[in-house]
Amino acid sequence: MNTTRPDLLVVGSVAVDWIITPTAEREESVGGSATFFSMAASYFASVRLVGVVGHDFPQQTLKDFDDAGVDRSGLEIDPEGLTFRWKGRYHENMNDRTTLETHLNVFERFDPRLPAGHEASEYLFLANIQPSLQYQVFEKMKGPRLVGMDTMNLWIDIARDDLIKMVSKVDVLTINEEEARQLSGEHNLVKAARAIMKLGVKHLVIKRGEYGALLVDHDGHFFVAPALPLEEVFDPTGAGDCFAGGFMGYLSRRGVTPNGASLRTAMIYGSVMASFCVEGFSYDRIRGLSIAEIQERFHTFARLTDFSHAHLLD
Amino acid sequence: MNTTRPDLLVVGSVAVDWIITPTAEREESVGGSATFFSMAASYFASVRLVGVVGHDFPQQTLKDFDDAGVDRSGLEIDPEGLTFRWKGRYHENMNDRTTLETHLNVFERFDPRLPAGHEASEYLFLANIQPSLQYQVFEKMKGPRLVGMDTMNLWIDIARDDLIKMVSKVDVLTINEEEARQLSGEHNLVKAARAIMKLGVKHLVIKRGEYGALLVDHDGHFFVAPALPLEEVFDPTGAGDCFAGGFMGYLSRRGVTPNGASLRTAMIYGSVMASFCVEGFSYDRIRGLSIAEIQERFHTFARLTDFSHAHLLD
Repeated sequence: MNTTRPDLLVVGSVAVDWIITPTAEREESVGGSATFFSMAASYFASVRLVGVVGHDFPQQTLKDFDDAGVDRSGLEIDPEGLTFRWKGRYHENMNDRTTLETHLNVFERFDPRLPAGHEASEYLFLANIQPSLQYQVFEKMKGPRLVGMDTMNLWIDIARDDLIKMVSKVDVLTINEEEARQLSGEHNLVKAARAIMKLGVKHLVIKRGEYGALLVDHDGHFFVAPALPLEEVFDPTGAGDCFAGGFMGYLSRRGVTPNGASLRTAMIYGSVMASFCVEGFSYDRIRGLSIAEIQERFHTFARLTDFSHAHLLD
Repeated sequence: MNTTRPDLLVVGSVAVDWIITPTAEREESVGGSATFFSMAASYFASVRLVGVVGHDFPQQTLKDFDDAGVDRSGLEIDPEGLTFRWKGRYHENMNDRTTLETHLNVFERFDPRLPAGHEASEYLFLANIQPSLQYQVFEKMKGPRLVGMDTMNLWIDIARDDLIKMVSKVDVLTINEEEARQLSGEHNLVKAARAIMKLGVKHLVIKRGEYGALLVDHDGHFFVAPALPLEEVFDPTGAGDCFAGGFMGYLSRRGVTPNGASLRTAMIYGSVMASFCVEGFSYDRIRGLSIAEIQERFHTFARLTDFSHAHLLD
């Protein structure tokens, strides 16, 4: 593995959430897809964050980005506006959640601008924002080596054509299980995956929450990454974005065109970062990890599915 | 692996189901927990089946048991009664189902009797029947080396004390995810597993349907077995019983006190047999498999979670 850190550009939401879980509550919990992605990917790559926040955005998080080596020159701070805010309550199962309030604020007029040099980043992740904005950023790039994207049910509903246009351009799409069904119109997940890949995406990652994630690579091979069985899921917010951060971060760090083998290892690093994420509010557990901690959890994941392939029948 | 086949006794239901799926229907679909278990385990062990059917039970299945080497001397055929019959409809997701009719018939007065010699079987599986009947069979045994059991939500509801008494005696309990939550009163699966193991069970297998299965061994180590992503789930009936058949069959065949390693491989053989099961009605796909087919699917499972453990961060 090379030791210079490649540039990984991420564009997405940066938010302040109000999180209510069955056991705890935090009123000012910094979130947003690009925040979680950046913090998780910062262990692997030189992350460049593009997004927008308001004057109310916590200074501490700006400092945390700096400490994590995240280049935030592309994070616009609007002195006139308020940060995107979301308030939600998780149900007992920690999987379903109810949105209580959404205030787009400065995010409503988000027009991603890339600071000079950003367009030459070799790796690009289009986190969950409006597909037309994702496309706008994509078009500004100068031939990135690898492009990943995420999306959500809202865009499948209201911007399907834009979404499909964007999907057709990317190397990796990460999507939730239910969204994969919604996008493809197929209930069976294998059929859903095949239909989505026909849209032009090279590799597909289907996120299954507490059941882990599924990879379908360009050759049609499946890989199943488990989720870590955790005694306490403190706050699931951002798990999918941290997964994407570990996944894209690892692929960027490897610096090769992803193949079956590197994609599989990337799936595990994604799962590792997601497993840390849910152990605390916001990016509390994703900040200040040691490489040794990440490696130890990687090995925990390895043990989780490891079995002898040698014991055959006779 | 030794080549003499150990005796594996199973007691459970033998039924004729009427299965309706979104795409197909079969009115006389032979089922029942002991039927699926026996057919799946027959590739690994000398299965002895204990159950009861009526005069309407298909001769073809008796012949199929014989062809599979299943000893059915403990399968009582009541010339006065009708076989246990269940009619159900699977929903679009192939996971949820609605029971349309249940006729216990001869199963209502099932009083398991063991033919001479059966009580000396080294391996025992108590498939899903009333816990007091499971206990009755268990007490007749002469020190089996390994005892497994399955159960269902009904017994957790109406026979909890009997169930807990039975659970405390077994080496392996296989149980569905929702049932594990119901039995333990814990929503979090790790907490649920810990609570169930405190009841006295040595190793716990939590079945998660299309998401595979989870093992918690006696040392508290977790193992995640994936399910095979299938393009067509034809009929999920019996998948859990086929899993148990492959799992217990493999452990019997190994002939050792199960440890972490053999339990893990057993989880995969269980998953292999379950994956065949759902590809057809009844035991259609579980009958007449070649060892080569089973091995090939085992390797398919191995590839599903295989990744390099060598790529670390620096």
